[in-house]
Amino acid sequence: MREVEVKALLVDPYQNAPVLLLKDQSSEKVVPVWIGSPEATAIAMELQHREFPRPLTHDLLKSTIQVLGGALDMVVIDNIQEATYYATLFVRDRAGEVHELDARPSDSIALALRMKSPIYISEEVFATSAIELPDNDEDEDQREQFQSFVDHEMNVADFKRFIQ
Amino acid sequence: MREVEVKALLVDPYQNAPVLLLKDQSSEKVVPVWIGSPEATAIAMELQHREFPRPLTHDLLKSTIQVLGGALDMVVIDNIQEATYYATLFVRDRAGEVHELDARPSDSIALALRMKSPIYISEEVFATSAIELPDNDEDEDQREQFQSFVDHEMNVADFKRFIQ
Repeated sequence: MREVEVKALLVDPYQNAPVLLLKDQSSEKVVPVWIGSPEATAIAMELQHREFPRPLTHDLLKSTIQVLGGALDMVVIDNIQEATYYATLFVRDRAGEVHELDARPSDSIALALRMKSPIYISEEVFATSAIELPDNDEDEDQREQFQSFVDHEMNVADFKRFIQ
Repeated sequence: MREVEVKALLVDPYQNAPVLLLKDQSSEKVVPVWIGSPEATAIAMELQHREFPRPLTHDLLKSTIQVLGGALDMVVIDNIQEATYYATLFVRDRAGEVHELDARPSDSIALALRMKSPIYISEEVFATSAIELPDNDEDEDQREQFQSFVDHEMNVADFKRFIQ
């Protein structure tokens, strides 16, 4: 497994679909994950340290886990099937027992950010989905090409070609 | 407090905003509550007994409560401030202690439907917000007027006038 962090939250302008870029902590590679708009909002609010006047659904999920004496050990993105990613929440109860819950990566990440829990990706999913994120200092051309790509030209088909 | 049930989920075509109608079990009155689109989707899926291929956020909230040995005793819509409704989740932990969690009515109802928990509304909120829902058998004109209103003419301003 590899620990990843949320590198960016972008919007694919052609599909108007939000895309999360998860960066591997031990390389310059990123894994793009398409998510839904409500979950993108939940993630953006947390990344920007903004608070909505009323608790959002993932805030409620966090406070529910806390009042029940639970903890979120980690989330793992552990499968990909037909372009859909799967994730597992590792929820520890008050007695120390860990329960594995099937979840969407978007919900998992929105919750992990709120609970300061680590986000992992399985080696298998990483091998299938990771793309090189050009280094900032070297290979300026490639970096610019990537930036231009994510800024202006991104669509799902192109991105998938880019991945492969 | 009054127990209510979800009578209908409508869309205000002018604002493209979903509206829940909560019906008092002991009268023909309903309370309209405007909610967000993601929560409306979560409620609609449950009302229609449809299952999404992947767990939605409220499904995850339910399964999290369950693995932590918790239960949802009830939800109560207990305040309204500047047209925003407030609700409280009563979450019981494994030891029997009940925790009150501040929540939006939409999240509360999406969860209550999934956990078969009762939905209540405080007398104060009910007194402020309830409107008469014409009986199906008597006063056909008024019923048709209401139907036409919710089907075609509903907008927030009109609805608020209708409430008052």
